[in-house]
Order: sequence, then structure tokens, then C-alpha cells
Amino acid sequence: MPSPVLIAGAAMTPFGRSRHKLMDLLAQAAAAAMEQADQKQVDALYLGVMNAEEFTGEGNLPVALADRLGLMGAAGFRVETASSTGAGVLESAFYAVASGYKQSALVVAGEKMTGLDTAAATRVLAEVIAPSERRYGASMPALAALVARAYARAHGLEEDQLRDALGAVAVKNHARGALNPLAQFQKAITLDDHAAARMVAEPLGLYDCAPITDGAAAVVLSSVQGQVRIVGVGHATDSAALTSRGSLVSFNSTRQAAVQAYAMARINPAEVDFAEIHDAFTMFEIIGSEDLGFFPPGTGWRAARDGLTGPEGSIPLNPSGGLKARGHPVGASGLAQVVEAHWLLTGQVDPSRRLPRQPQVALTQSIGGLGNNNLVTILAPASRAWQPKGAWQPLYDLPLAPAAPRRPEPPPGQTLGRVLASTILHTPPQGFPAPLGLAMVRTQAGWQTLAQAPPDRLPEAGANVLISLENGLYQAKAINPLATPWLKAKDQLDKLPTRYRLLRRRLGR
Amino acid sequence: MPSPVLIAGAAMTPFGRSRHKLMDLLAQAAAAAMEQADQKQVDALYLGVMNAEEFTGEGNLPVALADRLGLMGAAGFRVETASSTGAGVLESAFYAVASGYKQSALVVAGEKMTGLDTAAATRVLAEVIAPSERRYGASMPALAALVARAYARAHGLEEDQLRDALGAVAVKNHARGALNPLAQFQKAITLDDHAAARMVAEPLGLYDCAPITDGAAAVVLSSVQGQVRIVGVGHATDSAALTSRGSLVSFNSTRQAAVQAYAMARINPAEVDFAEIHDAFTMFEIIGSEDLGFFPPGTGWRAARDGLTGPEGSIPLNPSGGLKARGHPVGASGLAQVVEAHWLLTGQVDPSRRLPRQPQVALTQSIGGLGNNNLVTILAPASRAWQPKGAWQPLYDLPLAPAAPRRPEPPPGQTLGRVLASTILHTPPQGFPAPLGLAMVRTQAGWQTLAQAPPDRLPEAGANVLISLENGLYQAKAINPLATPWLKAKDQLDKLPTRYRLLRRRLGR
Repeated sequence: MPSPVLIAGAAMTPFGRSRHKLMDLLAQAAAAAMEQADQKQVDALYLGVMNAEEFTGEGNLPVALADRLGLMGAAGFRVETASSTGAGVLESAFYAVASGYKQSALVVAGEKMTGLDTAAATRVLAEVIAPSERRYGASMPALAALVARAYARAHGLEEDQLRDALGAVAVKNHARGALNPLAQFQKAITLDDHAAARMVAEPLGLYDCAPITDGAAAVVLSSVQGQVRIVGVGHATDSAALTSRGSLVSFNSTRQAAVQAYAMARINPAEVDFAEIHDAFTMFEIIGSEDLGFFPPGTGWRAARDGLTGPEGSIPLNPSGGLKARGHPVGASGLAQVVEAHWLLTGQVDPSRRLPRQPQVALTQSIGGLGNNNLVTILAPASRAWQPKGAWQPLYDLPLAPAAPRRPEPPPGQTLGRVLASTILHTPPQGFPAPLGLAMVRTQAGWQTLAQAPPDRLPEAGANVLISLENGLYQAKAINPLATPWLKAKDQLDKLPTRYRLLRRRLGR
Repeated sequence: MPSPVLIAGAAMTPFGRSRHKLMDLLAQAAAAAMEQADQKQVDALYLGVMNAEEFTGEGNLPVALADRLGLMGAAGFRVETASSTGAGVLESAFYAVASGYKQSALVVAGEKMTGLDTAAATRVLAEVIAPSERRYGASMPALAALVARAYARAHGLEEDQLRDALGAVAVKNHARGALNPLAQFQKAITLDDHAAARMVAEPLGLYDCAPITDGAAAVVLSSVQGQVRIVGVGHATDSAALTSRGSLVSFNSTRQAAVQAYAMARINPAEVDFAEIHDAFTMFEIIGSEDLGFFPPGTGWRAARDGLTGPEGSIPLNPSGGLKARGHPVGASGLAQVVEAHWLLTGQVDPSRRLPRQPQVALTQSIGGLGNNNLVTILAPASRAWQPKGAWQPLYDLPLAPAAPRRPEPPPGQTLGRVLASTILHTPPQGFPAPLGLAMVRTQAGWQTLAQAPPDRLPEAGANVLISLENGLYQAKAINPLATPWLKAKDQLDKLPTRYRLLRRRLGR
């Protein structure tokens, strides 16, 4: 039997643009968590930072922090899982305490991002993107924009319906951020503000993207004291490249992580009272609400629009304001979610921030990279009075998407395909022209690739295109469907029942 | 009761200058370990890399590796503990399996260092050094050289005795490397070669320092299958700066890690049949042999000189050739030690590499930073036939050194002190003049600092110096003891018995 893992203390710094150094932020959060736990020493120190090497030029951070806090002697680790680092470092410490070999662990996670300008920070953040997609100029917002457009097409949303649903997420999270004294953005916005904001990567505007932030969060884990218990953890990877996946509109890694966490906790999604979801982009909150089993696939956008995820809704999402409004220091966010959950579960928030019903079960979900290293953590009261109601069972069928066929080697010089989603990226990484048109293309052979496209003649989702290699990168050009009888014929064939497969195969599919 | 943690497979790439990319090296080692374990899938993937961000510009590595190996779905972590990363990532995975939540984990550790030139690589490596020491131009070899000189002074060794002992370590490890087909240096050297080699940081020459290396190692952990069991792990941090420590000639972090590992394994040092020790510098093997309790403090140099640590000796050290001859890809070394230990314990080496007696218990020790994040791992047969003979008990008294007094703020513009150790650094980091004279100075108030000094008038250990701040850095100048009656008087007082403390206190100590 593993040892129980309890949260004995939780704290975080204000999030935003800070004048403090990374080490100051980490030490501030850590000292506050240790004080809340009333502990002077711990067995281990787990530090989560995504990329201090390039953001601040620092190394050997667990030692520097242990030294600063007077915790020398504790085992010191640094853990990183891209943008889910805060959750990944918590999970690592969880196992150490659960094993029984460590009785206590201080978990600290932070990032100092504003030391670099936005273009340089965007370049560093883009290092988590698969090289095959990074070379096209794809940034995180660009890939998230492709996911949003693919979601709209898969579920039959018009562009304005999509934008309204995204706006509803942004408005809700800003409203909650306005109540949170530690949030980076403490101002409410309206749907009109959302609609009027400048575009980052269409259809995602400024209010759809989490900001660049400094901040740190800390939690003290203990096997003997604490009011809140970590009852479930789940964690799964997915293919590095978005183009390798059979589905763009759900994340296998979230679905797998959720199943693990629910199974460990022995609860089902209906028992969760609120969740902190990784809304680095508003679209990801909607997809998360489906992947976590709160709403059936394809309906998360409507739930957001209709207020089901607000504080009075059936499943309040991001009562903290989320990454969107609280801010997103990449290494810290996954742990800040847990700090928020701990505070709400133990009532340590201003009355204005309380949920209508005192929650008992909280869930946090964190996304690493472009949805390829995701974690789910479930928290519940440590008291023996709380017990799961039954065994875990899914509310909705959430199958895993198959992998897309692999690109042949060498890649063909040109081929026909269809656009799955496209975007105009207005702030591409250093070294790429702005604006930059990007399309995700499924070729007639089934494999997928990014392609650049002229922004003024961007082929829309569903368009037939010819992609051609130029300097090693595919360029997409919309083609007249009338001029491509093959594509038209295939399109018709695709709609025929499977008993016509033989015919389709003969025709070259 | 924690689950047992067994090694089901272990492999490594050849170490050296490689034409392969980091991801190729990691995948090669991982695939070989998975094949040896006869596993197609694992619950978790733990990846150890010290600084891929700056060595190769890559991020999100656990995902990239999972994708490459077809292990998507496994939880993916990256763990870093500076130069002990290979051991730190193993320990992290150890807890996951010991907790019972994960049944298997693939642990992979590697580094690609030769993509940068030596000066740039030295700069990246120097980031693990405390900023207060890095700003003086201290590199890892420079600090190791100060440790060596301090050791000689503390234990009454003449310079040639010290050099002979260091040479004995280098000759032994090169002789073993010559037998190891995966070692970077497969050539034996003589004491004369060692003596004639160019100086890196006096008294450490080329054959006293581990090289810059590419390579990767991998281990599959399982709670159900494997011939070798991890029976003990220990891990402790120490102050970031060498100047903050009360002793330069032993590492508290090794001593604490060793006590934890011996206690968990319930064995004492005499039961260890061989050890892989972190000989990034030959001096560190000698100090490690004392801190691990194999030899009494101050006698490790003699044990090395007299062959007690050779393959026929009482405790063979670094039968692989060590970091010195096998090579030192910083993120990989800690795990490569465990791979070597596994191979020797299971007899998977060429007969020429076998030890005279088939070993049963192996120990590995890994150093993070300048001896401030150290780990000890103990391995033994998984068979129930093997049991520890008794409880852990130390063979020698190995007390922890107290911290040195803190430097006052603001630091005095100038003050008197005594040199604890000094070195001439012939290949300083980018931006510093070569050669660079450095001294570790204990001030009359007791606090310690690095100081720069003219290489042609370098004050030796024991010399009285005046240190003065110039551009924020202390410069040390030897002073004539006759001109400093205070220092002379204090020197005499230091030799008086403690009952004269009152008198000493009155005189201002």
C-alpha cells in the first residue's frame, strides 16, 4: 500500500511582470508554503522550471534554492515536462512520498519570462514544438489556432459561433481573474472587447492567449499531515507533432491521463466539483472540458457559451481566472492550479471568490507542449469522512484517436491534398515574415503536413490544394476543384458506404 | 512496504565524440535496454539531460523520445540534477516504481556536448557553479584544483606526493578504460604520461580531468522482473558555493547520501565489492573513497597510490575506466555507472574485464555541481538468496563539516586573510584572461572568498594575504608576515590550547 500523500501547505507569488529574479520568486513561494506547513526541514526539494537556462542563464537551481532556504541536505531534483512542468514536478514528488522513502517534500515551480523581449521569449517557447513543425514558423498560438479551426469544421461551427464560444471562455476567466488578487489581469472584459482585440493567430486574438508571465508556486507534501489529499494522478505523452495525430480536436494525452487519475481516485467526472484547466488558449479549455469527460465531444463550446462552466454552472472551470487571466509562467502554472484547488477546498480565499457550494473534489489538468505531455491531478479532503462514492466509470465514450499515417521518405516534391485547418499568424517567431499563412494539409495518401501559404490567398479548411516543396518546406496553393477531377471523384467516393471500398482501392486510394 | 525495484535491462552507447545527434544517442541506448528487458511498452519514461537547451537547442525531449520509440502514452519526465543527472533521473523513477503506481519505467540519460567548441562548452558547464564564484572566472577544474591543494595541505602532502596519488588514479582508470570497448579513451597511460601532460588548473593536468563527451545510457526498471535490485539510494544537497563550506576536503553531500543508501540497504561499506565513483577529477575519486567510508579520512590518497583501489585491491574503484577514461557526457555519467555495475554483477562483460572475485554488491556515487547534489546508489542480486549480513554501521567516523561563517554585507573593501588553496587556471571560461590565478582565502573574520591573484606571484596555501575589492572582485596580494604583527600573533594563539580562548577572544578573534 502506498503512503498517503497530503498537502501540508500551499502558496504562490503574485503573477505578472515582476521586478524579482527567478530565485527570489521561487524562494518567496517556497518560504510561504513551508511556513503554512509549519515545517523547517524537508526530506526532498523538487523544483520545476521549464527553461531557466535560456530565460535567465541559470543552472544547478535545486542547489541554489536549497542553499537560499537553508534546506541543504535535502535531496534536490529539477523536473521538467515542458509547459506542464508544475504538474510534472508535483507528480515526481508524489511518488517519492507515496513510496514511503520520503516523509516530506517541498515542491516549487516557477518561471521568469519577462527578462526576454516577446520575440525572443516566443522563440524559446517554440523549442517545445516538434522540429518538423517549428521549421514552418509554427508557434504555439499558430498550432492552437489550427486546432480551433479544425474543431469548428469537425463540429459544424461557423466562424462567429466559434469566436463567441472562445469569447465566453475569455470573459468568464477575466471575470474570475478580476476577483483574484494574485492574478496578472485583474480586470473584467466584455464579449465586445474580445471581438475587438487584435489577432494573434486567426481565429485566436489577444484575449484567447495566455500572457507571458513571471511567478512561482509551492506546495509542501507530507505523508502525515495536511487537510487535502492527492487522490489521483494521471500522465501521458502523445506524438510530438500535431501532424502525426489522427485527430486535431481532442488530446489523447489528456484522455489517457484523465482515465488514470479517475481510476486511481475511484471517482467519475460527475463527482468533480470544479476544475482548473490549462487554458493557455481559450480553445484548450473547451477541448479539455470534453477530454476530461465533463461534456460529450463536440458540445464543450456550447457549454462554455451557455455558462455551464461558470461559477454557478454544473462544473465551474478555472475559478482562479485560469492561465488566461491569472497568467502563465510556463513552469509554474501546473502547480499554481493545485495551489488554487487547495485554497478553494480549504476555504482559504476571500468570500467573493468562493463557489456557491463548498467543493469537495477538485481536478487540475495541465498541458505540456502542444498537448503531448499532459497531466491530471485529483484532490479531495484528507479526512476519513470523505470516500469515493463508487468505482470509476466514464460518462461518455472517449476513444483514443489513431496516429496519422507516416510521411513517406523522401517526401514527394508535390502532391494533392485538402486543408484541415489554416491560420494567419500575425506574430511569428524571429526569422519568419509577418503575417505568415499556415495550413494543416491531409494529403491524398493520408499523411499530414504543415504548409506555408500566402496570407492574402489563404486556403480555408476543406479547400483542395496542391503542395510543393520549396527550399524543403511545403507551400500550399488552392486549386480549382473543376480542374482536379481526381479530387472530385475521391470526394464523392469518400461519401460512399464501405462496401464500395474495393472500387475505391482500384481507383488508387 | 515499497515495491521492489529491479533492473530488467541496461545498455549504453559508445562514449566519445559522436557523429550522432542527442536524440539518436538516447534512442539507441533506450532501444537496447528495452530489448534486453524484452519489453515493448513501459508505464513511464524518465529522461535525464543536463542542458540540452544550450548544448543542442532542443526542448520537450521526453515527448520527442517517446515518439521516436513508439512509447506514446507513457508518462514522460525530464529530470536534472546538474552533473549527477543520470543518477537523479534513476532515483526519480525508482520512487515511481517503489510506490507501486508504476510497474515499469524506462530511464534514459545522455548528453551531446561536442556540438559546441571547448570554450563554449566550458561556459555552459560553468553555469552550475555558484554565481559568487563563477564571476571570478572559476571553472569546475579550477575549483577541483583548489580542493586538491586544500587536501594536500590538510593532510600534510607535498606537491609531488599529491601528484603521484592523482597519477595513480589516472593510470588505473586509463588501464581499465583500455579494456572497455565503449570507453572514450581505450589507451593505457603511464605515471610519466600523467606527469608530462599539460596543466589545466594546477595541480590538475589533462589526465586529471574527465573529457568532453557525447553518449547515452539506459536502464529499464521493473517491480516484477530483473536479476539486480536497487537496494539503497541516498541523495543530499550542500551549499552552492565552495566558499560557504567549513571543509574543502570532503563533501557533506556524499557523506549524507552514503549514510542514507547504506541504511536503506542495511549494509556497511565493507560489504561493497566494487564501486563506480564520480572521478570527473582524479582528486574526487580519492575524496569519494573516504566519504563513502572505504578508507579513513586523509588516507585515500595512499590507498590509491598503493593499489588498494585497483581490480585486485580491497575495493576496486571504477572498473569501467571511470568518467576519466570512459568519458563524461554530463547528463549520462550517473546512469552509465549503474549500467556498468549491472553488467559486472550479472557477468555481462568480456572475461578480461571481470574482477578477480564475482561481485555481489556494487555502489555508484555521482556528484552534481561542485559536490553539492550528490547521490549514492547500491545494487545487489534480486535473488532471495542474497540478504544483507546485518544492520548498517559506519566503519569510520565521518562527521559533517559545519558551514563557514557568512560574508558580511556589504563586504569590506579590504581585509587580511590566509590562503587555503590556490591554483593557476590555464583554460578559463570565455571572457577571462589566461592564465588566471585564483585563491581561496579565509579572512581573519572567518568568512571565505575566492580572490584573483597574479599567476606569476600566486600566493600559496598558508600564505598571508591582503584582499582588496577591485571592480567588485577581490584581488589577493601576498604580504610580508613580518609587516603584519597581528597575523603573526594570531597564528601563535591558534596553536594554544582552548583554555586560552578567553585571551584570544579579548585579542579580537
